[in-house]
Amino acid sequence: MKNIKPLHDRIMVERVEQEERTKGGLFLPESAQEKPIIGVVIAVGNGALLEDGKLRPLYVKEGDKVLFAKWGGTEVKLDGKDYLIMKESDVLAIIS
Amino acid sequence: MKNIKPLHDRIMVERVEQEERTKGGLFLPESAQEKPIIGVVIAVGNGALLEDGKLRPLYVKEGDKVLFAKWGGTEVKLDGKDYLIMKESDVLAIIS
Amino acid sequence: MKNIKPLHDRIMVERVEQEERTKGGLFLPESAQEKPIIGVVIAVGNGALLEDGKLRPLYVKEGDKVLFAKWGGTEVKLDGKDYLIMKESDVLAIIS
Amino acid sequence: MKNIKPLHDRIMVERVEQEERTKGGLFLPESAQEKPIIGVVIAVGNGALLEDGKLRPLYVKEGDKVLFAKWGGTEVKLDGKDYLIMKESDVLAIIS
Amino acid sequence: MKNIKPLHDRIMVERVEQEERTKGGLFLPESAQEKPIIGVVIAVGNGALLEDGKLRPLYVKEGDKVLFAKWGGTEVKLDGKDYLIMKESDVLAIIS
Amino acid sequence: MKNIKPLHDRIMVERVEQEERTKGGLFLPESAQEKPIIGVVIAVGNGALLEDGKLRPLYVKEGDKVLFAKWGGTEVKLDGKDYLIMKESDVLAIIS
Amino acid sequence: MKNIKPLHDRIMVERVEQEERTKGGLFLPESAQEKPIIGVVIAVGNGALLEDGKLRPLYVKEGDKVLFAKWGGTEVKLDGKDYLIMKESDVLAIIS
Repeated sequence: MKNIKPLHDRIMVERVEQEERTKGGLFLPESAQEKPIIGVVIAVGNGALLEDGKLRPLYVKEGDKVLFAKWGGTEVKLDGKDYLIMKESDVLAIIS
Repeated sequence: MKNIKPLHDRIMVERVEQEERTKGGLFLPESAQEKPIIGVVIAVGNGALLEDGKLRPLYVKEGDKVLFAKWGGTEVKLDGKDYLIMKESDVLAIIS
Repeated sequence: MKNIKPLHDRIMVERVEQEERTKGGLFLPESAQEKPIIGVVIAVGNGALLEDGKLRPLYVKEGDKVLFAKWGGTEVKLDGKDYLIMKESDVLAIIS
Repeated sequence: MKNIKPLHDRIMVERVEQEERTKGGLFLPESAQEKPIIGVVIAVGNGALLEDGKLRPLYVKEGDKVLFAKWGGTEVKLDGKDYLIMKESDVLAIIS
Repeated sequence: MKNIKPLHDRIMVERVEQEERTKGGLFLPESAQEKPIIGVVIAVGNGALLEDGKLRPLYVKEGDKVLFAKWGGTEVKLDGKDYLIMKESDVLAIIS
Repeated sequence: MKNIKPLHDRIMVERVEQEERTKGGLFLPESAQEKPIIGVVIAVGNGALLEDGKLRPLYVKEGDKVLFAKWGGTEVKLDGKDYLIMKESDVLAIIS
Repeated sequence: MKNIKPLHDRIMVERVEQEERTKGGLFLPESAQEKPIIGVVIAVGNGALLEDGKLRPLYVKEGDKVLFAKWGGTEVKLDGKDYLIMKESDVLAIIS
């Protein structure tokens, strides 16, 4: 996904399908009020802005498999695929 | 657009029409609660104000094609064209 | 307007009439939820207060033609004319 | 008003009557949602507290004629006169 | 009141009765939406916490007669007397 | 209470019974909207986190008799006794 | 739980069952509005982000038995077990 660059502390994520997820052993409860979702990081921003105007490089890297809360991010569709643009701080955990 | 200069961390954006957008392969879902919009940056502010009063030059540049959330910015009409003035932080990603 | 000095980061603005505005080519949509307004800066404050107590001189200068959101500022009437006192950060852009 | 000292960034203001105001040429619209009021500063606080615990002397001085928003301040009555105690930041402008 | 020490930027205040207040010439209007109250400072905290963890000594001293907004503070009754524990910033002015 | 360590700026408090309180002369009014409560500090946290990541040792010490607002803290029951875990800043005053 | 790494100041916690809890002597009241819960820390984040972009290592360690408020954290299910991902600041106390 070379043609889209998230701004500052934002990342672009492609959701992993439900089937794939259950195979990997990770299952997310239907009843949970804040249902987390798994995805793969497609692109990361240029860095989080600090108070003095400097940039902190993001911790999350392209290719990372991440767990994030459902309400995080804005949906975009590119070439027929769904993506999410969210802030790095919306990521709950990195799965390896 | 030499005759309008956004203040500080604001940028002025011209929306890209829907037809043009779909050709480029990027399609934004109708159903999305927070529908992002694509535009071209027409003018950028003099810099974001830091806590010590200094200015951080904006990362977004004139001519950048940007993706931003629908609710961002204030509409203005100039010589019959619609523009949006928003904060740089309302930009989700830069498309290249 | 020598006899009124806005405090700190405030500026005093005189609205430009609708007729004058349309001649200049800039037209603001009636339907816009946040209708911006054009005005001329009549007086500026002594500077914005920084966290360490120092003052940052304002960027907006006396005589600047500015675009600002409708809800910004407090109305005052002086010698029969309407003015607005607003914060510099309520200014969206400077028109030249 | 030597016997009352506002605390920190607060000031004590005596409202100027409506008659006096209209003579000076400054008239405040009845219809304005946020009706500003004119007053004279009777006493000022010992300084605004900065984050490091130091004090910034107030910019507004005893005797200044100030314009302030109606909702600002707390009313007190002393020896039959009405006063307002407000924060310096509630002052919109100084009139000279 | 040696046996009670307010914490950090809090002070302990004993209200002055209405009769006593009117004698001193200061009368607080019944109709005022935010009725200020007069009291005497009985005890002060060890200092206001600054961001770096240091303490700023309070400006208000034991014995000061203070004016404060009605909603400020928490009531306590000790040996049959009513006291208020409030933050120093709830004090509007010191009366001397 | 060696087996429970509050985190950072939290403290663990055991409420003092009403009977015991009235004997000591301190009586808290039933009608007070924000009824303060007395307790004894059983355990204190490792320190309050400052912005630079350092720890400020708590001012409140194990064994202190403290006055705190009713809404402060979370209740826990341990070996049949009720305790409260609250932030140090929920403490109004230390009684000695 | 080597294959999941909480981000920044987040930790991953496995709840301790009710039976086990009552044996240990710690009982949490049903009626409490904010019912705390006990759990064991399974994984901790890479550190809390400070304002200057540096990381503060977490105080809570893998294996710690922690007490936390019920509303804290997001539920995830992994290989049939329930976990919670929460911020370190949601931890009320460490039990040893």
